Amino acid sequence: MFLKSFSRSSISRYHSLTRLPTINQLFKDVSIKKYKGNDIIPELNCFIQSIKTLKNVTFLDVYDGTTSKPLKLVINNNNEAIPLTDLKMGQSLSICNWKIKETPSRLQEFELSQTENSKITILGEISIDYPLQKKQKLTVPYLRSIPLLKYKSNYFASLIRFRSLLQTQLIKLLTKQDFIMCNPPILTSNDTEGNNETFKTIPKNLNLTVSTQLHLEILAQNLKNVFTITPCFRAEMSDTGRHLAEFWMLELESTNLSKLQDLLDCVKYLMIDTADSLLAQESIDDILPNDTQLPSATLNKEEIKERWRHLSNPENWKQITYTEAVNILQENHPSPPTWGESLSSEHEKFLAETYFNSEKGAFVLISQYPKNIKPFYMKHNLENDKVVDCFDMIFPGGMGEVAGGSIREVDIDTLQKAIGIDQSTDLDWYVELRKLGSLPRGGFGIGLERLIAYLFGLQNVKDAIPFFRVMKDKVSF
Amino acid sequence: MFLKSFSRSSISRYHSLTRLPTINQLFKDVSIKKYKGNDIIPELNCFIQSIKTLKNVTFLDVYDGTTSKPLKLVINNNNEAIPLTDLKMGQSLSICNWKIKETPSRLQEFELSQTENSKITILGEISIDYPLQKKQKLTVPYLRSIPLLKYKSNYFASLIRFRSLLQTQLIKLLTKQDFIMCNPPILTSNDTEGNNETFKTIPKNLNLTVSTQLHLEILAQNLKNVFTITPCFRAEMSDTGRHLAEFWMLELESTNLSKLQDLLDCVKYLMIDTADSLLAQESIDDILPNDTQLPSATLNKEEIKERWRHLSNPENWKQITYTEAVNILQENHPSPPTWGESLSSEHEKFLAETYFNSEKGAFVLISQYPKNIKPFYMKHNLENDKVVDCFDMIFPGGMGEVAGGSIREVDIDTLQKAIGIDQSTDLDWYVELRKLGSLPRGGFGIGLERLIAYLFGLQNVKDAIPFFRVMKDKVSF
Repeated sequence: MFLKSFSRSSISRYHSLTRLPTINQLFKDVSIKKYKGNDIIPELNCFIQSIKTLKNVTFLDVYDGTTSKPLKLVINNNNEAIPLTDLKMGQSLSICNWKIKETPSRLQEFELSQTENSKITILGEISIDYPLQKKQKLTVPYLRSIPLLKYKSNYFASLIRFRSLLQTQLIKLLTKQDFIMCNPPILTSNDTEGNNETFKTIPKNLNLTVSTQLHLEILAQNLKNVFTITPCFRAEMSDTGRHLAEFWMLELESTNLSKLQDLLDCVKYLMIDTADSLLAQESIDDILPNDTQLPSATLNKEEIKERWRHLSNPENWKQITYTEAVNILQENHPSPPTWGESLSSEHEKFLAETYFNSEKGAFVLISQYPKNIKPFYMKHNLENDKVVDCFDMIFPGGMGEVAGGSIREVDIDTLQKAIGIDQSTDLDWYVELRKLGSLPRGGFGIGLERLIAYLFGLQNVKDAIPFFRVMKDKVSF
Repeated sequence: MFLKSFSRSSISRYHSLTRLPTINQLFKDVSIKKYKGNDIIPELNCFIQSIKTLKNVTFLDVYDGTTSKPLKLVINNNNEAIPLTDLKMGQSLSICNWKIKETPSRLQEFELSQTENSKITILGEISIDYPLQKKQKLTVPYLRSIPLLKYKSNYFASLIRFRSLLQTQLIKLLTKQDFIMCNPPILTSNDTEGNNETFKTIPKNLNLTVSTQLHLEILAQNLKNVFTITPCFRAEMSDTGRHLAEFWMLELESTNLSKLQDLLDCVKYLMIDTADSLLAQESIDDILPNDTQLPSATLNKEEIKERWRHLSNPENWKQITYTEAVNILQENHPSPPTWGESLSSEHEKFLAETYFNSEKGAFVLISQYPKNIKPFYMKHNLENDKVVDCFDMIFPGGMGEVAGGSIREVDIDTLQKAIGIDQSTDLDWYVELRKLGSLPRGGFGIGLERLIAYLFGLQNVKDAIPFFRVMKDKVSF
């Protein structure tokens, strides 16, 4: 009966793609009573998270990265079949023929207990002093410095599980609403905004895309609602907690978004819906990290969910124009901008974390910036020729600008003038597009790592991507 | 009542992200009786697909790329509010205040009829002789040559809708089975297999990844089941219908796949499950192209679905070793390989389309190739030291190799020997990984464009990606 449950027709009408189970599947199967007490688990691969030896028994917590809950094995100390004295934290194991034993503990619905046929085989030794000892207090910068090992920690494994969940939720929310997922090119002949440091390629001298927006517009013009989750590249020397040379963006473009207020509502409710959908996830506690193994200066499970609740509450959202922002800063900030200048990250931080004085900060949509500090493709405001119909979305929590977007200029003369003459060869096609049954449209790009950093309480976007790339560091793998 | 239905709480508990509807949403809403006859549609953006003028009325088919079904407007010819004589195919329109009128036609559940307040406003003119005339017979190579216009065709728009659906289905199937979606880096210091033409970047002299497998192994070692859908880059000069300089791969890696047969079953059932899930899609007929507007030499809706049924039938799958393949070819092919040589695409084609003589070809898993013609990371077969535990997945229909994979070598000495001494600096970390609580693992990469080409019946992968990049052509946008 047990073997059947891993057979090729157990998961709805689809086949189980791997013969061996994950620890997460095991917990789920026990919770739906697919396994009960005394059922035997024939085989499982995992690694040792902790070892606790008492007089007669040893408790072995094993982990496989698929859930934050460890699986507990109870081993008799006097059984010679188990190589107890060889076991070390971090080692990887194959465990065979262990029996499910239901437990009354709250944290753990069951443990695995030994049978006559139970085996533990060490599959992978660990050649170093394992740094992830349970009693050692870890820091995020330390874990960041050991890329081959950091995902053995509950915290970084949780980050990867969360990034996966966030992406699938975004895709679900958007495709349900008739947004089509696309993959615009990474290799391009332009640099989108005209003022970015790009990576060029050998051979071919092409740019790695800094944003796929221009190509998305071709698709939006003909397919209405499109989006992509795509890598983008900027060869900027900035070395801050908010910049990466290789990062991912959710970019969205729609011919149903032709008015600035519609665009602002779209990005705001996409964020609110995302927070709601994360909070509604059944398995969210198994995805987020365990409180007991948190590195210092990180948020725990409840604090992370509190951020999501804060984001999902429309009352924490503010909408102001750039001009209003400048006025607020001139009245309240020690070194304010003058109208026409860019807002610094300090100005943005002041607005989102100090001025709009909700306890945990506000999500601020700043609209209609001066055209001189924004890219050529943004639509000139019809009532005030000095500003464009654009926005930046500022988050509290240290990340600042998480998204930016605009209504796109579709008037050919205005666009051509904004591009200027010197760049016209590269962007001829972009102007031409306006002559081919064009529609008004708008869109935005959300920096995925900055969004993840806010949602998880990270202080550095380097931790929000599996393996980070920045201009300053040598890439050694 | 109508306005409410577009309000910010209409779609389950989530907000509608755009105020205006899509034509696809309109068809759905009518089919579930959310709209009935005489309801008014206040505003919709679209473009003209065809115009048919009779004595008293004009039939206008409009389209917005979200469904293959056109929406029909019935216009009285003597109404001066509608600029009938200015209307041209390909133009984009705003249509306001049209009334839903249910129709008995099979193709169309309803049409839009005129009211006193109905308006049509031309939003985007078309500056050229519109090439997508209904009576003109189009070809795929011609459409490919007009990238700014090709997605106005039902066929190419359908391809984008299908690519989106395929990706979301793959993500759904895999995440349901505890596979975690990851984004390994694009910029790397190695070239994965040691014999690929790579793009290098200025500055930094990094390679654009040719496969993310090596980094996925770090994640799989600690998170068990991982996958990515990622762009990859090869600067190969090959100019065939099967090669792109920039392409997307589904790459999957798992420590639950430590035996070759498990790996073969995984890729096979992933393909079978994908075909099943596409066939089970409710909206599939609206995603696939209309029969009436097919370019020449393409498959129609039913022929496409027939391919999926063929793929989903396990009887059409064959599994042989490389040695068996060589024997078959030596007995049956005019210019066979000798043992130890690579199989050419002609050999693969012969096996999948001629030798395994099912009418529509077979899906052939060829395993255990000679180690000398395969990359360093493949596990040496324990019984036969001359071969490695790998496979290529060959599809009929012209695409040949659609996937390749292997069990990974985890024995440090064998691996180090396979890498050789000269490359050891770049790959030190990959060897080191085996010393850090390693687990046996396997994985594969599926070329997304080749898979799409098979599933849609394309003859060229250039059509399976929104905007293709090949080494031969100048990239002009």
